[in-house]
Order: sequence, then C-alpha cells, then structure tokens
Amino acid sequence: MTGETKIVIIGCGAGGGTTAQFARKTDRKAIVTIFERGKYPQYSKCGLPYVISGKIPEFKELIEFSEDWFEKERIDLFLETTVDEINKKNHTVFAKKGNERIKKEFDKLILATGATPSIPPIKNIKKNGELIKGAHVLRTIDDGKLISSDIKKGKKATILGAGLIGLEMVDALSKKEMDITVVEALPEILGNALDNDMCEPTLRVLQEKTTLYTNHVATKVSEEHGTLRHVFIKDNKTNEEKELETDVLVIAVGTKPNVSLAKSIGCKLGETGRITINEKSETSVKNVYAVGDCTEYKDFVTQKAVGIGLGSIVVRQGIAAGVNAAGGNYILPKGVLLTRTSEIFGVEVAAVGPVKNAFEKMPVIYGKFKGSSLPEYFPGGNPITIKVGVHEETGRIVSAQAVGSNAAQRVNVFACAIFNGANVEDVKKLETAYAPPIAPPLDALTLACDVASLKLARKKD
Amino acid sequence: MTGETKIVIIGCGAGGGTTAQFARKTDRKAIVTIFERGKYPQYSKCGLPYVISGKIPEFKELIEFSEDWFEKERIDLFLETTVDEINKKNHTVFAKKGNERIKKEFDKLILATGATPSIPPIKNIKKNGELIKGAHVLRTIDDGKLISSDIKKGKKATILGAGLIGLEMVDALSKKEMDITVVEALPEILGNALDNDMCEPTLRVLQEKTTLYTNHVATKVSEEHGTLRHVFIKDNKTNEEKELETDVLVIAVGTKPNVSLAKSIGCKLGETGRITINEKSETSVKNVYAVGDCTEYKDFVTQKAVGIGLGSIVVRQGIAAGVNAAGGNYILPKGVLLTRTSEIFGVEVAAVGPVKNAFEKMPVIYGKFKGSSLPEYFPGGNPITIKVGVHEETGRIVSAQAVGSNAAQRVNVFACAIFNGANVEDVKKLETAYAPPIAPPLDALTLACDVASLKLARKKD
Repeated sequence: MTGETKIVIIGCGAGGGTTAQFARKTDRKAIVTIFERGKYPQYSKCGLPYVISGKIPEFKELIEFSEDWFEKERIDLFLETTVDEINKKNHTVFAKKGNERIKKEFDKLILATGATPSIPPIKNIKKNGELIKGAHVLRTIDDGKLISSDIKKGKKATILGAGLIGLEMVDALSKKEMDITVVEALPEILGNALDNDMCEPTLRVLQEKTTLYTNHVATKVSEEHGTLRHVFIKDNKTNEEKELETDVLVIAVGTKPNVSLAKSIGCKLGETGRITINEKSETSVKNVYAVGDCTEYKDFVTQKAVGIGLGSIVVRQGIAAGVNAAGGNYILPKGVLLTRTSEIFGVEVAAVGPVKNAFEKMPVIYGKFKGSSLPEYFPGGNPITIKVGVHEETGRIVSAQAVGSNAAQRVNVFACAIFNGANVEDVKKLETAYAPPIAPPLDALTLACDVASLKLARKKD
Repeated sequence: MTGETKIVIIGCGAGGGTTAQFARKTDRKAIVTIFERGKYPQYSKCGLPYVISGKIPEFKELIEFSEDWFEKERIDLFLETTVDEINKKNHTVFAKKGNERIKKEFDKLILATGATPSIPPIKNIKKNGELIKGAHVLRTIDDGKLISSDIKKGKKATILGAGLIGLEMVDALSKKEMDITVVEALPEILGNALDNDMCEPTLRVLQEKTTLYTNHVATKVSEEHGTLRHVFIKDNKTNEEKELETDVLVIAVGTKPNVSLAKSIGCKLGETGRITINEKSETSVKNVYAVGDCTEYKDFVTQKAVGIGLGSIVVRQGIAAGVNAAGGNYILPKGVLLTRTSEIFGVEVAAVGPVKNAFEKMPVIYGKFKGSSLPEYFPGGNPITIKVGVHEETGRIVSAQAVGSNAAQRVNVFACAIFNGANVEDVKKLETAYAPPIAPPLDALTLACDVASLKLARKKD
C-alpha cells in the first residue's frame, strides 16, 4: 500500500460511527468513507423509547454525531446510500444513492450492517411487503416517528415480546396513558436478561399496569380500511385463542442480522448466523472487519458464541475496528460480559454474565441477598436484591443480577470481578464504600457473596 | 480447655458488637461477655451527624443491636462498665460498674477499646479536665445530645477540622441554619480523603455556605459565665490572629487510640501507636484479639501501617475476630483498601486507595475524566468526575477518587479492581452497564482509565 489508507465503513449506527471516529483518531491522514442506508448520521437507537415516552423532546436529539461533525473530522458520510455490491478482488464497494451510482476503493472494509427486527409469522401482518398501518417495529428514528404518530391517550396498544426493549416500550406507552397488553411467547418475562426469580418486582408492576399474557403467541391480525384492528393470540399450551382490540401493535421479539453483504464476500458466519470476528474485530476475510449487531462473539464465561445486541459492546467493537483498521492495535477482551441494565416503571434492573439457562452444564450455585440501599436507621433507603452466580468447582464469580437501588453500578462491580477472574471468597470480603446516606457498612453485593460462599462450603462438606 | 469457650470483649462499638455477633454465630455454646463503658449497646457513630441535622429523628434510632438482642443471643452485655485491669496470667479481666466489681475469666479476649477524640492544645478549652460549655467533640450519642442542645438557628458555629467528619458536621449545622466558620490547619480540605484537585466542587459549596479558613489553627478560647464566647485562630504562615464569635465549637481533628489496656498486657503497638494485628485480627499476645479504631493494619497498596478509622473496616475486623475467637477460620485481606465515601451538601464524594501524598515514592500516574452520569441527550444527567491512579511500572490500578453521581458505587468498581490486582489496560475495556436513563455506553470510570492508559503509553515512548 502506498499513500493514505482508504477505510470504507458500511453502516453509520453506533458500531460504524464509532469505527469512523476511532479510525480518524488513530490515523489523521486516512481517507474514511461511511455509507448509511438511513436518513440520519449516528444516533442512539437505545434512546428511541424515551422520545416516544416524551422524556426526550425530539427524535433529532438522539443524533450523537451530526453531519457537521463528520465533515469537520473529514469523514465522507453518504446518507440514504445503500451498498449493494462488494468486489473483494478489486477492493471496491458499489453503492446507490437515488439514481447515483457510487464506487469506492478500500484498503480496509468495515461491515457495520446491523440487524433488522424479526417479524414472527402472523397472518395478514404485511400488505405489499410492508407492515400494515398500526403495526410497528422499533429500530430506527423513522420507526419511532411512526409509532409516535399513532399514539393516542386511552387507545389500545399491544406489545409483542417482554424482553428489555419490549418492556421499555410498555413503559413509554404507559406514560402516554395507553391501555396496554403484553404478549410473550415464553413462560417468563425478560427471559434473556434476568433469571425468573429476579423478575418479581418488574412482573408485579407489569401485572398492575398492563394485561400480561405469557405463553402466548400472536397468530393473525385483522384490519379495517387498511388499518390494524385486532391481534389474535393463542395460548401455547391450551391453544385457546383470544382477540385483542389493538390500535398500536409494537413487535419487539428480537432481530435478524444483516449479513448478505458479508456472505457475498465469503465472511464466515457462526452458530448464531452472525459474522464471526476475532479479538481485533476482523472477519475471516483479510482486511475486512465487522462490528455491531451483525456480529457474534464469545461469551466471556462460557466461551460460546453469542449474538451481539448491546450498544455498550457495539461501541467497544467499533473502537477496536477503528483503531486496528487505521494501523493501531486494540485487542478486545476474550469474551463479552453482556453487562446490561434498564429502568422499567422506575425499577432499575441490571445483570452481567449468562442467565441460568445459558450456563447449560456448567455447575453454578447462587447466593441471593435482599437488603436496603441504606443502613436500616437511615430514612429513604430503597430495596436492593442481588443474586450472584459462582462456579461450583473454581469458586469464581460467573454472573450477577440486581434489582433496585443502583443496580447497574453494583452489577459493574461484579463485571469487574468476573473480568478479573475473582473468587467469591475474596469478593465477599471486598471493602465497599460506607456512609449512612449512601450505603450500609456491608453492601448487599458482598452479602450476596457471603450467601454463595456458605452454600459452597456446605456443598463441599 | 474443657467445656465452653469463654470469650470476653471489651467495648461494644461496631467492632466489639460485630465480634460478639459473629462469635455467637460461629459457636452457639460459647460464653460471650461484652463490657461497654457507655450507656448504649452497639450503635452507629457514623449516623450521629444525621441526627444532629434532623434527618434521623432520634439518637436512639442509631442503636443497631438492642439490649434485648444481646439477651436473645445469650451475650452478657454490661453497660456503663469499665474494664480497668487485665490479668494475662490468670486469664481474667476486672471491671467496675458503679460500685460493683466484676471479674470475668476468658479463653479469648477481644480489645475493641476504640479511640478518643483528639483535643489540640487550645488555651482555656478545658475546665476541671472537661471541655467548657459550648465546646464539643463528636464521638458518642452523649456528645451528639450535647451538641444538639446547644444548636440555635442563626447562632454561630465553628468547626475545627475539614476532614470528612468535620464537613459532615458543617452540613448538619448548616441544615440547622447556623452561621458557620470552618478552620483547617492544612492548606486543603479533606486532606486524608481526597486529592486536592478532587475537592473543587466541595470547596466551592463550602466557600459559598460557610466562612472557611485553611492554614489556620485555633490557639485559645474565651468564655463568659463558664460558656464559650470566642475562638481565636492564627494563620499558620503569617501568624495573623482572628477572633471568631462562637456559640458552638465542634472539634473534629482526629482521634487517639485507646491502647492503655493493650499496653498493660504487652500487646505490640505499631508505627501509628495503635495495636498491631495480623490477618486473623490477633494481637502479638496469644488468645488476645483487637478490632476497630484502637488497631492499625497494612494498607493494601503500599503495605504500610495505617490507623483504622472507617466503620466498614471495623465491621470486617469484627467478623474476623468473632469467627476466629470462636474457633472458626476467617482471614482478612492482605491490607485495607480504605474505601470511603460521604455526602456533603448533596455532593457525593468517594475514594479508594491512598491519597497522592501517601504514595510517597511509589510512581503513580493519574487519569482523570469529567463526564455526565447519563448520555448527553438524556435529561437529568449529573456531573461525575473520576480520577484513577495507576502504578507506572506495573500498570496496576492503585487508587481511585470520584465526585458526583453514584461516586461510591463507581469507586466500588475500582475497589474490586485494586483488590484483584487489575491492570488499567484491562479495566479501560470493562463492559459497563448501559441504558439511556442509567449510564452512558462508556462510563466515566472506564474513560478515566483510558486517559491513564494514554499517559502511560506516552511515558513509555
């Protein structure tokens, strides 16, 4: 290679945008080009429910890096431009912007093509290949605007999927005073995020504020003058059917990765159907990197492949891809911790490491402690429940879940513990910060470790 | 030894009380006796300022384990009882309760004798060996009651000492609308708790709400009808004197350990004049343990002796002493992290590891990051500043300080990192929990590590 490095990025979500930013930071001279199908430069997808709820005034506030910013950083940003072909041999990508045809050479190519919301097989949900009016997914600002335009106080909303995003939408539409029904195919809510026993406070408020059907799937919808009227759901066990009057349907049942371009150039896909990357964010094809929701990576604890879907991980992959593509050296950790959090109806939940089912055959015992965020005598304490998972043979901490006061930062402590291979016998003795208005002398996080340690000792007896 | 183990504990503060509790948990048959000079069973000393401020309604709410609790646990609690002699050879202690003389045999003895507030050499501060009316220290519930009875809205309070406890008292008396002056001998506030550059927000609010004299010491006081009227202070550098009209003086300049009983039986004292203990909380004298503010222990990072004065550490020592004295096995970590926190005028501060000066010759570089607790686009974010200290040669994290939103729990993450010997190159890549209403994708805590890592790289170039 002579002259400046030509870096081409496909997709300007958090992954692609961060890659561009760090490529520029690493090599001030590189020629960086970024293609984005949508209308907007890098914005926060995770922020969408909070615009819909009214907490954030406008969708445009979610834009984290403006077109001006990209221009100032000398990054060529093409919006509303779709890359439809990669010529691996000639190191060239081809894109379409309206009728214009764009050709770009690259030395390094980054696939940040993201994912597309999954649509379950629901009869009549689409007309001419599009969701019928009133039926929605939530992935882009445009999706968010469509939902917002359909919201009416007192009208009926049905949410398919009781995962984190589904429940964030429940919370948002509840703030808009809609009458909400939640439909979840699994027996439990938040199945991928929390163990069932840790969902109890969230479940309680959900049951109070919505009509909740677990073990139910949507089978078909009916329309009236081209607009959604009913969602029909079926009990997974009894096959009993129900008809839900619905003005707004939001489908939040996961995503499919966008991997057609990756496949076209022979990038290896992994078990989850996403692009396999190494600890430099490189794909199996030389000079081609991938980041974000189109990728999979190893779980830190189990070392099994997991699909990426958390903004926090995407950003870190973007740093790695950007630095490495621009000639630097950034090594990702040997796996993802899946540290995650959300606030649903005012209750903070957070977790790190696999949920119970995902451990499969790994022998894990749990310690759980329910306490208060403050010493008993201090007014204003809030409940906090911590559950810590410990590998039965090694004593290492392998997971943690928290519900309540400062759940996320408490889980970050466990993220640090897992990341450093810490043993529960040590973490139970961790000297946590204590002051009456802030935390008790023995924080719930060490007390949960105490419980696990006792169980471990009993097991060994 | 035959029959039940006789455990005698001198002092029923957090250290002695916790020792009793864990001795009982470990050996249901042990005969546990605890002697306490004061009127109250185990209560939270750290909670005193919050009763004075009115946040907690009554002093008695600070009592964490009542006399009934001790009775139920079959722990013999003697209040208002002073141990004045230990016969090491005969394994006996002698105590006085009023005119009564009590003799107790022990197999295991625990010294939890605490510390006494230091009184600097201030002329006229005492009369007949007692502080004059209006002059106070804050160590016990009785001290707190005396201060409370002197508080009057609009009257003048002078606080000697701008450490954590001094400033907690400033905050408390400010809530009582007193007119406050703070006098600190050092050039900076919070000298043992935070580096100077991290005190800025606290300093600003202190300057706004009080009159602050750093580099000043109190030299004498004047009285009127036996009651304090003026405090005279002197500039350390210019020797200039000032007279402060004062209704309530609170002296918060540290403590002296109570070690006369320990000395009488030959317990080794360390560099700080406190009782030396090992990782089982044992003193140098066989079968004699010590816990709490009368002890010193190694600093985790520097391995130098430090005096113990944090409730969180005292409780952990109590667990060790209680378990070990009762025949169990509990090993303390190889040093104390000194994880600490407080909330002063609504600003949360926290730190772990030595302050800058305490590192002496250890080569430490710092990374500092000032950000927001939430993503920029999300309303309601609060400032958070993190400073992380890294050993220049090993790259290990050796300290952290935080001011602002959730400072304490963020510092707990660093406590976990230090405790596990984590390297800054790893912690900067820690996957922290992200959700718009809770924390940004890259938390200030990893970004501070990024800054330190960059500095480290530059140094090595």
